[in-house]
Amino acid sequence: MDYEEPQFFRVIQYARRADRDVVDMVSGSPDWDPPAGVRDGLRDYAEADAAQFQYAPSEGLRRLRERIAARRDVAVDRVIVTNGTGEANHLAMTGGLDHFPGEEIVLTDPVYPYYAGRANFLGAETTLVPVDDSGHLRPAAVRAAASDETAVIVVNTPNNPTGAIYGADAMAEFAAIAEEHDALLVSDEVYDHFDYAGRFSSALRTDSPNVVATNGFSKTMAITGFRIGYAVFPSAEGPTGDLLERARTRHMLTNITTSRPAQYAVERALATTPPDYYARCRDRLADRVDRLCGALDDVGAEYTRPEGGFYVMARFPDFPGTFENVYELIDEGGVAGMPGEAFGSAGAGAIRFALVTPRVETAAERLRQFFA
Amino acid sequence: MDYEEPQFFRVIQYARRADRDVVDMVSGSPDWDPPAGVRDGLRDYAEADAAQFQYAPSEGLRRLRERIAARRDVAVDRVIVTNGTGEANHLAMTGGLDHFPGEEIVLTDPVYPYYAGRANFLGAETTLVPVDDSGHLRPAAVRAAASDETAVIVVNTPNNPTGAIYGADAMAEFAAIAEEHDALLVSDEVYDHFDYAGRFSSALRTDSPNVVATNGFSKTMAITGFRIGYAVFPSAEGPTGDLLERARTRHMLTNITTSRPAQYAVERALATTPPDYYARCRDRLADRVDRLCGALDDVGAEYTRPEGGFYVMARFPDFPGTFENVYELIDEGGVAGMPGEAFGSAGAGAIRFALVTPRVETAAERLRQFFA
Repeated sequence: MDYEEPQFFRVIQYARRADRDVVDMVSGSPDWDPPAGVRDGLRDYAEADAAQFQYAPSEGLRRLRERIAARRDVAVDRVIVTNGTGEANHLAMTGGLDHFPGEEIVLTDPVYPYYAGRANFLGAETTLVPVDDSGHLRPAAVRAAASDETAVIVVNTPNNPTGAIYGADAMAEFAAIAEEHDALLVSDEVYDHFDYAGRFSSALRTDSPNVVATNGFSKTMAITGFRIGYAVFPSAEGPTGDLLERARTRHMLTNITTSRPAQYAVERALATTPPDYYARCRDRLADRVDRLCGALDDVGAEYTRPEGGFYVMARFPDFPGTFENVYELIDEGGVAGMPGEAFGSAGAGAIRFALVTPRVETAAERLRQFFA
Repeated sequence: MDYEEPQFFRVIQYARRADRDVVDMVSGSPDWDPPAGVRDGLRDYAEADAAQFQYAPSEGLRRLRERIAARRDVAVDRVIVTNGTGEANHLAMTGGLDHFPGEEIVLTDPVYPYYAGRANFLGAETTLVPVDDSGHLRPAAVRAAASDETAVIVVNTPNNPTGAIYGADAMAEFAAIAEEHDALLVSDEVYDHFDYAGRFSSALRTDSPNVVATNGFSKTMAITGFRIGYAVFPSAEGPTGDLLERARTRHMLTNITTSRPAQYAVERALATTPPDYYARCRDRLADRVDRLCGALDDVGAEYTRPEGGFYVMARFPDFPGTFENVYELIDEGGVAGMPGEAFGSAGAGAIRFALVTPRVETAAERLRQFFA
């Protein structure tokens, strides 16, 4: 497996070239409007003094870091604002490989392709641990796979693509396994606002010095194009304190700092967005989950109802989710999903549907007709 | 040497804490207003459809890449839009180390500290080649230093901190040396609009497959905070074609893509900014060069008049540019410069003055008084 974009791109291009209407359930970009504060922040920034158009501090605008630290209940010094959650994961994974003795990265199967692509690019050994039938990575399975060769364990909660959420107990176990093997737990929590089960628990709550949590505003604020994410590293005073300094240096030498208009707008939105905005986004997606799952039930598909995030993986009777069948579903059914094999062996045969389209009901109707 | 920020920060903080007025000539952030198109672009972007708030293509917005390609007279496929010139240099230097057999990076002494910091971070061997008395890196000196161990040669034209510009002949020689030793010439051309001598010649004009040119809009458009830069890689069809693909992959796995509001605003500014804007910026800086150099002449300082860029390195009689003396110049003279030793051994004893302040005449007067 290489990395995500080309395979996604290939399916999206195919859907666009189809000579019929197709509901795009491939890409993971939110389809709703960002909070008003994002636009207000950009408007104000456009009128700012010339000095505000110059470098932000390398680790991010102070007020933005303070708001992030307050939300995550951590010391502000532990927060680095990054060019999206992607860079946050990059800093965390490279940091873990640099700091800890092992050279192996443990990932979940099915896997978000960027994790696997990055691990390959970095020359790390990759071990994929299959999820259970409910789409959850089980701590016992991670424990069986991890060894002193392990430098990094990556978990994603809520999970893309399975929709699993890990509760506090599972998170504590993941962190304990990392500690036992002198490794780093990287917890990508970018979908944390999309928790339908009410059981999300940040890895930061483990208070482990072997944990980095990553997150961002791409999904929560519907601004994937802004590239504002962050990583929370262990305290510089603790036993793994040099992870933070090394990440700061890597961030500075790679990017200097993150784009300031985007940082400014996100800070404004954090200050002004009422909880109701996030609740409406979550409820909208919960409704879409209901609609799609209703159709999946009607056609006899196997799937696990997502606890969080905005993806559903499904297996249809006698219709494995190969690229060929996905193309047929586009041409004949008018619905575009992503072949599960793009997410590794455990995904093979399934199709992943992203719920970030207002036309989920149309897609549901079409699936009923196609599989009737 | 580690990297730039902390040492710069240390001097800037000292100057701010001084209990007198100080002209800051330390930092390299432009003090003038960006072109109107930058603000107009942001204003329009703030009203854009939600879809425009989502991911730009990984290599950058197509229209922005097309404008860059047209300006540099290269095929658009060779252009990657990066998170500032910093990431462009990072992609180029890491790409050269990955692709070519050597493990050494050849840098100019005095050196822009980020180059040296990055080389150290990447574990490369670093060879510093001193400039001549006029602040120029001589091709003969590079030829004497380069070997088959060399993977990357970095030049900066116009040069920070010496102000040297390399003409077409020198550039052709640098590229030839890179080709002879199976290495990459990385030419950082971020100050190309600030050419007082009229002799700037892009490394791209060499048409060598062993050249990557990097650039950005931080200085030209006075938007260091936006982080919009770019790298022009050799054609994918040529003998070094995999450099481009590898850089695309690294960019995607590190940053996914660059912040879209900033890309959008820069594209607008490229489309709408009249040549007059750039000419005024250049003339303003040329006037500041005159004013500062007048004072340096009056106090008997040794310096080379910059051909380009916006820095002047000077040596004062019996007043070496140590941190201690720089602090004295702040406290007693009211002018803050950067100790030359921050730029490596060839800079030791000099002080670098950045001309990005409207108060250059005040600084000139204060230098005359201090050194009277």
